[in-house]
Amino acid sequence: MKPVTLKQIAETLNMSVSTVSKALKDYPDVSKKTKRLVKETVDLLNYKPNAFAVNLRTKESKTIGLIIPEVVHHFFSSVIKGIIARAEKKGYLVIILQSNESYELEKKQIDLLLSKRVDGILISLANGTGNFKHLNDLISQDLPLVMFDKIAKIVNCSKVIINDRKAAYTATQHLIDTGCKRIAHFRGPLLPQNSIDRFLGYKKALTDNGLPYDPSLVYICECGDNSFEEGKESARKLLNDHTDVDGIFINTDMVAIGAITEFNKLGIKIPEDISVVGFSNWFMSSVISPTLTTINQPGYEMGKEAFKLLYKEIKNRKQNSPIKLKTIELETKLIKRGSTKN
Amino acid sequence: MKPVTLKQIAETLNMSVSTVSKALKDYPDVSKKTKRLVKETVDLLNYKPNAFAVNLRTKESKTIGLIIPEVVHHFFSSVIKGIIARAEKKGYLVIILQSNESYELEKKQIDLLLSKRVDGILISLANGTGNFKHLNDLISQDLPLVMFDKIAKIVNCSKVIINDRKAAYTATQHLIDTGCKRIAHFRGPLLPQNSIDRFLGYKKALTDNGLPYDPSLVYICECGDNSFEEGKESARKLLNDHTDVDGIFINTDMVAIGAITEFNKLGIKIPEDISVVGFSNWFMSSVISPTLTTINQPGYEMGKEAFKLLYKEIKNRKQNSPIKLKTIELETKLIKRGSTKN
Repeated sequence: MKPVTLKQIAETLNMSVSTVSKALKDYPDVSKKTKRLVKETVDLLNYKPNAFAVNLRTKESKTIGLIIPEVVHHFFSSVIKGIIARAEKKGYLVIILQSNESYELEKKQIDLLLSKRVDGILISLANGTGNFKHLNDLISQDLPLVMFDKIAKIVNCSKVIINDRKAAYTATQHLIDTGCKRIAHFRGPLLPQNSIDRFLGYKKALTDNGLPYDPSLVYICECGDNSFEEGKESARKLLNDHTDVDGIFINTDMVAIGAITEFNKLGIKIPEDISVVGFSNWFMSSVISPTLTTINQPGYEMGKEAFKLLYKEIKNRKQNSPIKLKTIELETKLIKRGSTKN
Repeated sequence: MKPVTLKQIAETLNMSVSTVSKALKDYPDVSKKTKRLVKETVDLLNYKPNAFAVNLRTKESKTIGLIIPEVVHHFFSSVIKGIIARAEKKGYLVIILQSNESYELEKKQIDLLLSKRVDGILISLANGTGNFKHLNDLISQDLPLVMFDKIAKIVNCSKVIINDRKAAYTATQHLIDTGCKRIAHFRGPLLPQNSIDRFLGYKKALTDNGLPYDPSLVYICECGDNSFEEGKESARKLLNDHTDVDGIFINTDMVAIGAITEFNKLGIKIPEDISVVGFSNWFMSSVISPTLTTINQPGYEMGKEAFKLLYKEIKNRKQNSPIKLKTIELETKLIKRGSTKN
């Protein structure tokens, strides 16, 4: 059974296509009786208006694109959930693409979404993205764009972020407050703005507390992702390089969990020998041993806010209202658990 | 800057729209020189063909719909990753909707995807779905449909599954082989086929080994989802109801992790007092204490295979080739870890 067309409905009712179409759109020059008849027939035959034809008329696809670095990821899947929850309420569908942390892929996906005429794009940048021409091109084409979490400060669009620097400062301060004197940092890959900001927050907390900053205590993730294996490897390297480290601030929970697993295996006691603070508050962090002290990063809320900003921009452009770009900063919170001292 | 139109390109080149269009489609009656000129201008002006207009012509949206119960879920996010990886290769975009385990929402989402004229739908059923009219309606409209993981046996479409009964049998057999004599089962919600099959596999393993089946040892998840809290609560109930249970087969890792967390808190030793086997092999299961023995369920591969089946059906329908429905059964594997004895 092929989908029912407007023409078939018109034939069934012995009316013109234009009358049926007008009845469906609730035009005043069609009688109530006709409207009721059309409505009943439409329900009976399970007629769905052709989305393409509607789209050609209104020039809206009612679809937005979402590009994220990684789907199998507690934080990003929480963001996705927030976005689609909010989008569905407003009648928008979400096309999700995964950049695998690759700049090249991210660029191609932007093109793909453009060719699909999405009404707007939400993006969290790949770790490999250091050039923003593909995003500036979008903006110059008046396509609504909102960045979240992994953003580029110099791209002129709305953003939803947390204050990474402040949160990292809080995390490091907590290590200092609980007695750590020699604090290392696993900073993740080099490029993303949030890695940079978390590193700067760590450094500032040290100097504000009169502790020397020692670059040899900062471990950069060379593989480009923030993985469990990376955490294990950095933990081994750290033990090899230094004997006096008593605390680590790690820029993602997944890496912290890798480090804890390695320390557990090697008999290093957490927090007695080394205290650990993570970042993001993945669910997993509350069930490992010891449980992980971390910074809560509100993924679901970030997704919701990002969609809300995008929706507003889509609406304003449609109505030719002025566009006000906005950066929303969401609150983070230190969650104290077993991997740091009381 | 608005997107560039075909008309603007034609004006720029002082050609007719039809010549430009023909050149882009590589028609033989357009000269090579003209084609080159058009190609260069298209690149220069960053022209994207209008997806809606193309779609109206070919009656394809090159978009598929995916409905899953829950996005923040290690297994389902792995499936999503497999689907979008494969779909992108074939030039398809994926619209993802989340049913929140609700039948009503699932029904609405099917309608929404239909109205968007997707080329096909992939679905894993909500726990609340016990009526399949919405899916049979799709099939009667000739829309390609593939179910995966949580399927309905009576719906006549292609499927990608695992052998839940066999896998549950293996899990229970492992408990018996490692000395458990009184084995409980946390079976999850009542409706989904995979809950039923895992329960039947558990039961069969008991009787095949001469152990009595005792319904009071089977705990049903009343809240309808498979949550961490549910695992904690069932663990408490179990300890209250029985003093002689020495093993539990739990139908999802998340619930098993809840149970282990509760047992750890109450001083119950795993596996010495009670052995635990989970199902699905979430990443988390390899890092909790003790690590969780479980059944590996290949999510990424399941996503890939589901898309492949859907793609084949879309292609065959387009070419009016006969449609062969197929059920693919993927291999599972017992992963022995610390929550069961050697």
